[in-house]
Amino acid sequence: MLEHGGRLRAAAERYRIPLAEWVDLSTGINPRAYPVPALPPEVWQRLPEANDGLEAAAAAYYGSASLLPVAGSQAAIQALPACFPPGRAVTLAPTYAEHPHAWREHALCALPAAAIADAVDSADTLLLVQPNNPDAQRFPREQLLAWRARLAARGGRLIVDEAFLDAEPGDSLVPLAGEPGLVVLRSVGKFFGLAGARVGFVFAEADLLARLADRLGPWAVSGPARAVTAAALADRPWQEAARQRLNADSARLAALLNRHGLAGGGGTALFQWRPTPDAVAIHARLAEQAILTRLFETPAGLRFGLPGPETEWARLEAALSRL
Amino acid sequence: MLEHGGRLRAAAERYRIPLAEWVDLSTGINPRAYPVPALPPEVWQRLPEANDGLEAAAAAYYGSASLLPVAGSQAAIQALPACFPPGRAVTLAPTYAEHPHAWREHALCALPAAAIADAVDSADTLLLVQPNNPDAQRFPREQLLAWRARLAARGGRLIVDEAFLDAEPGDSLVPLAGEPGLVVLRSVGKFFGLAGARVGFVFAEADLLARLADRLGPWAVSGPARAVTAAALADRPWQEAARQRLNADSARLAALLNRHGLAGGGGTALFQWRPTPDAVAIHARLAEQAILTRLFETPAGLRFGLPGPETEWARLEAALSRL
Repeated sequence: MLEHGGRLRAAAERYRIPLAEWVDLSTGINPRAYPVPALPPEVWQRLPEANDGLEAAAAAYYGSASLLPVAGSQAAIQALPACFPPGRAVTLAPTYAEHPHAWREHALCALPAAAIADAVDSADTLLLVQPNNPDAQRFPREQLLAWRARLAARGGRLIVDEAFLDAEPGDSLVPLAGEPGLVVLRSVGKFFGLAGARVGFVFAEADLLARLADRLGPWAVSGPARAVTAAALADRPWQEAARQRLNADSARLAALLNRHGLAGGGGTALFQWRPTPDAVAIHARLAEQAILTRLFETPAGLRFGLPGPETEWARLEAALSRL
Repeated sequence: MLEHGGRLRAAAERYRIPLAEWVDLSTGINPRAYPVPALPPEVWQRLPEANDGLEAAAAAYYGSASLLPVAGSQAAIQALPACFPPGRAVTLAPTYAEHPHAWREHALCALPAAAIADAVDSADTLLLVQPNNPDAQRFPREQLLAWRARLAARGGRLIVDEAFLDAEPGDSLVPLAGEPGLVVLRSVGKFFGLAGARVGFVFAEADLLARLADRLGPWAVSGPARAVTAAALADRPWQEAARQRLNADSARLAALLNRHGLAGGGGTALFQWRPTPDAVAIHARLAEQAILTRLFETPAGLRFGLPGPETEWARLEAALSRL
């Protein structure tokens, strides 16, 4: 298993600080989650069935019906590599580690952003997180579409993980889903704050979705999670308010970090990335004050998720001022 | 995708009868499900973490801590075959179709019950559902343990799916989990009536559980489902009442079917199996009266789940008397 954010229990044990005292900034999950509505008992009791409203709500929210619900984008990340013949995969370095881990049985090159363009024409699969996790690197949408066309012309494919894109919806490639060689992953974990529900979507050509569905098997997404996600995807007023709030809070977080000597890096609406050679020490100093960030060692840096209530902002500010 | 029970939407469309009018007897799911408690919002919001109480509750309920939670036994059924080198697998015929489907890349023999004993010594994997779905066939526990020993001595394994065994807990092989070559699957879908939650458990040797966990990846079971399952597994008074109720209702269902010309076959606490050459016609006649049963064509037969409220018993009795 790879290391991930959100491992609060492990941190609580390591630093001997009770679970309830922590401010968990180690993930990029919206701290103001979609409020889970009351659910009919049937969603727990019956085997989940497709076309219960989830697929329709997802098509309307994301902008394409060429979709398959999956048990979190993690399920798709794991299942996709075996859907294609062995070949050469190119990914950004650094990126979300589950992607290269999943492609380990293919020939995989992890390249810096500047080297991606030159690698496209010798790749079978180009795999990007957009915006990238953890460093928020972005490629222009037109650039991605041009790469998709070049890959598809040779039977290859562009896979784009848009897990952190909900607050910037105009940049999504989902509306083009169904075009040859385009695979887009989405998740309700981050923007909707429903990481525990384990729901994501794959957008792609129909034959790939069919192969993926066969591989993932029946009832991959739980009934309660299907119901909550369908409600969240249909709630436009909540989404609009969340977008505004997240963008404002992310700007506030960036300014706070910059004021305390953590400038540089970049961010999305859901996290800020700060490269620093002192990442290990800063991570430990913050953890000693019960603030959990996500530490990256190569390249050295910290990812900060958004604080929720004002008390968490105050805790973070106090801890940063003691660094 | 294979055909399954519980496809009420498809039946409602085919027979043009509104969803709400149906009595669904097509699954073996307890119609009096465990009442889902109120859940803390965190289980939806945070990434699920191991050792949140679920593993401990499962160890106490099932009788072994050599376990891995999975997203329904279906997840284990799909993932197990690739955990072993290619070899010869033997399964009962008929049995739950997802098992042979999952082993299709191994050499698979599907044999009648009487032929299993002779096949053990040439098999690498013996795969049984106990009691069997759909025909409720059972092998004596001592017989299974002797087969496990013979298989394990040659590096083989016995895989037993105990999805329908909760109402007969003394027959379980789970307390022996950890012995070489023994793999036991359990599910909370049937007895607890939580099929929508997608939670099951694999009991096996530690190294196999580790390989399986790696293959299934992180966060395989959703947070809300983990919380509800932990509560259900700890609720001994509910379990005891459910056992008594299910056994009584199953006997009542058997008597009702027998009275209406559907004698023979067998049953578990959660369903009755009735082999009959008229299965297709009877299935259709019942469906026309908005009663959905599970049709099997080879061998021809019907599986009847338990009706819930008295109105459903009355509907079934009326429909049977019109056959």
